[in-house]
Amino acid sequence: MPGNQTKVDNSLSPHGGVLVERVAPLTGGPQDPTLRLPEIAVRDQLARECVNIAYGFFSPLEGFMGSADLDSVARAMTLASGYVWSIPILFDIDAKELDNLGVAAGDAVLLTHQGLPLATLEIQEIYDYDREFLSQQVYGTTDSAHPGVQRTNGYGDRFIAGPVTLVNPPSINPPFDRFWQTPRQIRETLSNLGWSRVVAHQSRNVPHSGHEWLMKGAYLAAEADGILVSAVIGEKKPGDYIDEAIVLTHQRLRDTGFFKEDVHHTSALLWDMRYAGPREAVFHALVRKNLGCTHHMFGRDHAGVGSYYDTYAAHQIFDGLPDLGIKSVLTLEWWYCPTCAGVAYEGLCGHPEQKQELSGTFIRSIIQGGVEPAPLTLRPEVLEVVRSCADQYGFGSPFVGDDYLENRTPVMTMHDIQCDRCTCTCTREKA
Amino acid sequence: MPGNQTKVDNSLSPHGGVLVERVAPLTGGPQDPTLRLPEIAVRDQLARECVNIAYGFFSPLEGFMGSADLDSVARAMTLASGYVWSIPILFDIDAKELDNLGVAAGDAVLLTHQGLPLATLEIQEIYDYDREFLSQQVYGTTDSAHPGVQRTNGYGDRFIAGPVTLVNPPSINPPFDRFWQTPRQIRETLSNLGWSRVVAHQSRNVPHSGHEWLMKGAYLAAEADGILVSAVIGEKKPGDYIDEAIVLTHQRLRDTGFFKEDVHHTSALLWDMRYAGPREAVFHALVRKNLGCTHHMFGRDHAGVGSYYDTYAAHQIFDGLPDLGIKSVLTLEWWYCPTCAGVAYEGLCGHPEQKQELSGTFIRSIIQGGVEPAPLTLRPEVLEVVRSCADQYGFGSPFVGDDYLENRTPVMTMHDIQCDRCTCTCTREKA
Repeated sequence: MPGNQTKVDNSLSPHGGVLVERVAPLTGGPQDPTLRLPEIAVRDQLARECVNIAYGFFSPLEGFMGSADLDSVARAMTLASGYVWSIPILFDIDAKELDNLGVAAGDAVLLTHQGLPLATLEIQEIYDYDREFLSQQVYGTTDSAHPGVQRTNGYGDRFIAGPVTLVNPPSINPPFDRFWQTPRQIRETLSNLGWSRVVAHQSRNVPHSGHEWLMKGAYLAAEADGILVSAVIGEKKPGDYIDEAIVLTHQRLRDTGFFKEDVHHTSALLWDMRYAGPREAVFHALVRKNLGCTHHMFGRDHAGVGSYYDTYAAHQIFDGLPDLGIKSVLTLEWWYCPTCAGVAYEGLCGHPEQKQELSGTFIRSIIQGGVEPAPLTLRPEVLEVVRSCADQYGFGSPFVGDDYLENRTPVMTMHDIQCDRCTCTCTREKA
Repeated sequence: MPGNQTKVDNSLSPHGGVLVERVAPLTGGPQDPTLRLPEIAVRDQLARECVNIAYGFFSPLEGFMGSADLDSVARAMTLASGYVWSIPILFDIDAKELDNLGVAAGDAVLLTHQGLPLATLEIQEIYDYDREFLSQQVYGTTDSAHPGVQRTNGYGDRFIAGPVTLVNPPSINPPFDRFWQTPRQIRETLSNLGWSRVVAHQSRNVPHSGHEWLMKGAYLAAEADGILVSAVIGEKKPGDYIDEAIVLTHQRLRDTGFFKEDVHHTSALLWDMRYAGPREAVFHALVRKNLGCTHHMFGRDHAGVGSYYDTYAAHQIFDGLPDLGIKSVLTLEWWYCPTCAGVAYEGLCGHPEQKQELSGTFIRSIIQGGVEPAPLTLRPEVLEVVRSCADQYGFGSPFVGDDYLENRTPVMTMHDIQCDRCTCTCTREKA
């Protein structure tokens, strides 16, 4: 498959061997020449990706991809350098906006967000690429009902490639501030915990007992020192769990002893799901390797949507790849079995005809029905947090609705470069 | 530590690379010259060990150990060849009996059991060895209260070394006949099951839910295809579970679906426990490697007795050894946790103050009290088998008592060489 893989060592951690860090807060105040660069205002997705690039979540990427990298990712699932990479990281822009800016390769631009400076982008290339081919390669489909294809089709008609430098780090708002850390900080946390074998659990859910055992089983399978919950915080669809409930319920499992304090840590990853199934599983593995994880668990339908991917496609894709320096821990289902009188593993339980699926749908009915769940479905301690999150953050519901989409407190807040002029309500230390 | 280890590959499976098989049933009928060799009648322990040697359970051993092997095992935990070996396998005899026989190195003897021929032993060496030193090295103590030391002290005053050939294979009586297989047969069974990663579970117990989860956790930790229960059937002490209950209750867990049919197999190993703690753990690992296992689970106090060994001594000993070709899966305790509402793992459960130990003592009180156990202590399906075994095999008790010691049906039955004259009640095909 990928042609250049043999030339590089994909097992290095962080990916590529060096943790990318491209953060250079402006020091010149309002007179800093950077503030006089042509400006491009970026939407939430691109702002999150600038932050991720700058802190090395996407190491070895130093910026948005050029055509050589993109073509190699699309065709061979590697960067042009040979390192495995599965998901395009692209800066798209409308041709008209680009014309108005009058910039070209060799120029630098200032990316702004929430009306304030965020990062610089040194333009190395401006190009276009066949989106239909790209969707087919990345998502295995060109069906516009697929949310990843939809996103691709919605991109502006040009891509700008080049390195990104964060010039004005945003602050992360409560309750996410205690969960979000840079890869360097997460690595320090894991090191302070004394964890050398760390298994990542990707989550966009309030954890039910099936998720709890998925984590417990993967902890055992990885012979791990600890579990890093990596909650994906990003673009929401109506009906999703609200972001606040996801991180706070995972934390609650630890706070109430369903995990020992020294084996469980919850973190937040700012990422807009692509629903690319197996390709996204590879991406998740690489990002969590950058966080310092040695193992990543993958269950059924990982990062999938609809019926585009086989149930265990994410299990199979790793077979064809070189050693990624993070081992995939492949798990089947955990269900409730009345005969076993507990949560049972599909690979071991001999009573499949009695299984009671701990599905998201079932758990939603518990939450919506206001019924106290049995202890081995959703922990009452978790339900309590779901309910308080609904009140505090969800406009009455733990599920995303119009109010939440329009009026939630943003996860990230930008600050004025000269912070003593900043009118935000942040508690950031004034310069 | 051991000097010759670097010269040999301890990772080969079977141990030493070749499955020893030394079985040559006599074909000459009552006139076979072997039957005219000097005879030594052997006790149960030695008869079991002859069978084990002959079928390769103890590969690479081809017979009882000579002084060079014994000294190397005692001092360096290897055979003289350099292969790791931890437990002496000795043929002891009283000097007086030896004198009466009038045999010397170079002679062969016929070993008999139950008054019938069993095996030949080609004498290579007759020697003595310092038992106090031996006990100190193998058991870490010379305390005669230690059952292994006691056994060593009780040995006859000479050791005979040399290769053993089974000339009259015994039959294994019900209910053990469906569980006992030779290493070659077990390997075939595992192969037919499609298992390439097999984790061994050593047992001398009726399995409670803690044992059940020990197996389930080790299955996950080993990313195994299946679990081989290897029940140790041998010399019994009063109060032990009767052998029949051990194998039949393990089998019951599978028959009632607490394990899927294709992940669990119960087998019997004829072995008299030495209670040598960590040294016995190494021995267990090597024997199970000979059966085709790739992993061996070790919990607390493995093969220990009293307080001679650290709780997790069996976990530590493997660190100092070369790759044995069988990986140890080290597990902490599983207990019942009322808050978790299930069997919980010591390494994960944050409610240790609430733990309800699933100890053997507690389970005995359930069995003896005639009280129906809660589902997550001893499975009712298992208790049912315990009770039927008490009636059918245990003279009214599932625990070994005097009646059982004196009147139980032996596990092995010898047959007359000329089987058409055999007066036993076996169903063996007549010659």
